[in-house]
Amino acid sequence: MNTGTLLLWKRRAWSSLSASRRGLPREKLPEAGEQVPGSGPRAKVLTLDTMNPTVKKVQYAVRGPIVQRAVELERELSEGVKKPFSEVIKANIGDAHAMGQQPITFFRQVLALCSYPELMSDSSFPDDAKSRANRILKSCGGHSIGAYSSSQGIDAVREDVARYIERRDGGIPCDPAHIYLTTGASDGIMTMLKLLVSGEGSSRSGVMISIPQYPLYSAALAELGAVQINYYLNEERCWSMDLSELQRSLEEARRHCNPRALCIINPGNPTGQVQSRQCIEDVIRFAAKERLFLMADEVYQDNVYAEGCHFHSFKKVLFEMGPEFSETVELVSFHSTSKCYMGECGFRGGFMEIINMDEEVKVELNKLLSVRLCPPVPGQAMMDLVVNPPQPGEPSYPTFIRERSTTLGSLAEKARLTEQVLNTVEGISCNPVQGAMYSFPRIFIPEGAVREATVKGQLPDMFYCLRLLEETGICLVPGSGFGQKDGTYHFRMTILPPKEKLQILLSKVQEFHQRFTLQFS
Amino acid sequence: MNTGTLLLWKRRAWSSLSASRRGLPREKLPEAGEQVPGSGPRAKVLTLDTMNPTVKKVQYAVRGPIVQRAVELERELSEGVKKPFSEVIKANIGDAHAMGQQPITFFRQVLALCSYPELMSDSSFPDDAKSRANRILKSCGGHSIGAYSSSQGIDAVREDVARYIERRDGGIPCDPAHIYLTTGASDGIMTMLKLLVSGEGSSRSGVMISIPQYPLYSAALAELGAVQINYYLNEERCWSMDLSELQRSLEEARRHCNPRALCIINPGNPTGQVQSRQCIEDVIRFAAKERLFLMADEVYQDNVYAEGCHFHSFKKVLFEMGPEFSETVELVSFHSTSKCYMGECGFRGGFMEIINMDEEVKVELNKLLSVRLCPPVPGQAMMDLVVNPPQPGEPSYPTFIRERSTTLGSLAEKARLTEQVLNTVEGISCNPVQGAMYSFPRIFIPEGAVREATVKGQLPDMFYCLRLLEETGICLVPGSGFGQKDGTYHFRMTILPPKEKLQILLSKVQEFHQRFTLQFS
Repeated sequence: MNTGTLLLWKRRAWSSLSASRRGLPREKLPEAGEQVPGSGPRAKVLTLDTMNPTVKKVQYAVRGPIVQRAVELERELSEGVKKPFSEVIKANIGDAHAMGQQPITFFRQVLALCSYPELMSDSSFPDDAKSRANRILKSCGGHSIGAYSSSQGIDAVREDVARYIERRDGGIPCDPAHIYLTTGASDGIMTMLKLLVSGEGSSRSGVMISIPQYPLYSAALAELGAVQINYYLNEERCWSMDLSELQRSLEEARRHCNPRALCIINPGNPTGQVQSRQCIEDVIRFAAKERLFLMADEVYQDNVYAEGCHFHSFKKVLFEMGPEFSETVELVSFHSTSKCYMGECGFRGGFMEIINMDEEVKVELNKLLSVRLCPPVPGQAMMDLVVNPPQPGEPSYPTFIRERSTTLGSLAEKARLTEQVLNTVEGISCNPVQGAMYSFPRIFIPEGAVREATVKGQLPDMFYCLRLLEETGICLVPGSGFGQKDGTYHFRMTILPPKEKLQILLSKVQEFHQRFTLQFS
Repeated sequence: MNTGTLLLWKRRAWSSLSASRRGLPREKLPEAGEQVPGSGPRAKVLTLDTMNPTVKKVQYAVRGPIVQRAVELERELSEGVKKPFSEVIKANIGDAHAMGQQPITFFRQVLALCSYPELMSDSSFPDDAKSRANRILKSCGGHSIGAYSSSQGIDAVREDVARYIERRDGGIPCDPAHIYLTTGASDGIMTMLKLLVSGEGSSRSGVMISIPQYPLYSAALAELGAVQINYYLNEERCWSMDLSELQRSLEEARRHCNPRALCIINPGNPTGQVQSRQCIEDVIRFAAKERLFLMADEVYQDNVYAEGCHFHSFKKVLFEMGPEFSETVELVSFHSTSKCYMGECGFRGGFMEIINMDEEVKVELNKLLSVRLCPPVPGQAMMDLVVNPPQPGEPSYPTFIRERSTTLGSLAEKARLTEQVLNTVEGISCNPVQGAMYSFPRIFIPEGAVREATVKGQLPDMFYCLRLLEETGICLVPGSGFGQKDGTYHFRMTILPPKEKLQILLSKVQEFHQRFTLQFS
């Protein structure tokens, strides 16, 4: 993978988009090289040359140039510009409500009650919603969600999270003192990486991440100036983790950095696999032996569709392995309100559970969190409802169960549909979507197309996805944004569009791929 | 100011509090020096020795050890432990709702409607609330506040912000493309500092901040590894800014770093001053001449109480100074939902307006923001209501105006009361609280007390505030947490407690100060 070319192309794409969106002629923008600090009234203080160099290294394909182009196309369509399609379908990001998924009624009732407590006297709201809202408000300063919470999060919510984890993990105890509420999972992941990073030169911290990965990880490591250590998932074996590959990756990394943490996303993003219990045990043994801090991104814990697959939390497996592991291995697990059956991304709710963290480091963590004051309280309230939903016997229980099953059932159906249709296409090969919300099929790109992409300074899968977008209005993210083995190409698509739209999307991809292959063969 | 001693003391205070809160005997915690990485099964991967060293330098007094002690005292009281007071009064943080301030009815009605749109058919909600909620929901993906927004923030909200700024600044145009919604103002400030920081050694970026300052700034600079450049506000002239002091500070800094930005908080935190129009013009000329990026923290823009004082936005003054300045000086201004008359801290809403930023840097900024996906959407909705409140003729207008005036009127009264009472105490001298939400009086600490504090390894004002807390239950923040001239001592207290409680607080401070002075003289 030629990262230099990719970066260059991305820079160009972003810049020209940005300029054209503002109606500025591109040639009027000063070139970085032209700006000599202090040379005249037009020179800026903050330029590409003078800005923080680590920020320039950050890339985030999920909202990258292809998505900017999709937004432009939407605007053009709405202005009446003729296109070979009538609608842009954005399957680039796991944004369930934007794709028409309905919120859980109970969650939104409680949020309305918390926002405007005068509704407590409204008889159309069920009692269980009122009691949840009361419990949350009582734990807020001045009984208002407009007060700051403690930086670690509202006590009552952290207690509810701890009880949820205990139920999920078959009774293994969870201490609310180990729970930290966060601004979505991204915030927690960023915070933990920030703690872990230190050193210079060959003692610089390295963090192991899967390839393909969710690009928050690479972006965070770039921003923090840490070393990204790639370990490759095994596409032939349904994106499973190989111990030998972990070992290879670690040993190579030790030559030039200090590996300190190992990140796993399970169920997988972008790859949709669900790791087996055995695999998780192996990973824990590996982390213990090699002295790595484990970071388990478990935000898709309810999104398991394939028969025979189950979600096993790292916490549970760790404790089942006995005190030799459960008392020593340092583990943080992340969850979020954004995924699963609720898809409440906009609330930016999340939590992390931290096991076996050094007490003195925890003091530093609390101090660091206090600077940002607290995670958004409505997001904390939403997280509370996710971990403390209606119970059997409560008035909202039947509706809640029906809504949840409908959403999860539909996701399971769309997971199967996606795999099925894509695998009928010659030149596309797709692992089962066992869990999460994405398919990451391998696409075979003809030599001719690879050459043309190279001439244009584009990576072949970016070239492919851009053409797909221009010809069909479908927005997918090229595999290069997540990382892939050299010489292989993929795209990520979410399975979130409503079934009818997903069917259109899949058949358009099918037609496009055939046309594309024919054209360049 | 002996920063080394302060850090040492803070570290100790935090650690011992943390240990005791968890019921762990302090001596059981491993000392940092005892941990030899890789030396055995009990050695942790992440320790004080191996963690990110910049995080260790971060300090944030507003939620520092004294507040932890206040929380402990509250717990002890609730467990029936006898104390010389019956209640802890926390005047350490600008958290209006926690102090009993009521939310604006209209804002909360709209939030409830956005959370649970079924309420649109509820006739008890006024039409203007419904139309605001509709406008917000229509701009959300899938018409749900549970969808991600664009990383820069919801389009409609940014348009409303731009119109608000135009009204505020007497018609000077504002482009929604220059508006970025943020997770509270803190997030925006952190992001801008992150962009500005670069270099190593003597070319390391420096950022000028006022002393006293709001410790978010020092914490952010520590975390980013940038140089903090102190310029002192003139306490004798009501905490005004002196150009000569700016110049002195800048020239000294140029010997060892590369000064790039100048931060101003107006109205002032912790110092409560409101800068004159002339002063702002001077600062802009200074920034233009010295090529500094201006960062104006204007979150208290509605909190102006003193007669003859007015809020002048940096944007307005900049544009009134003509194109020589308005087309060249790089300026960012921050606002928030947390302060003013609304005090909606928990929603973590905010925005920044960025003027004259290099277009290529803006591309980098957008990329950086996209990694965190988006600010919390309920906070964006709240920000929208702040900039687009009920208008004359709309049904909610009379209630809105009454609620806003009551809150601002009461704050003005408490500002005067605080100044008045504190200035009656011999050994306390307090500038007028012209704006914001804090008083930052100077306290005279007898030599004997300074000696005793030194023996205990505490800064004298921390010693003072801790005794105040233990004897009276009042929690204030020592001036050393904000910075102050060597040999002077202060504390910061909010004027937010309800009037009756504020009166008790002030008379307790009065009595304590007299007793303390007597005891150590």
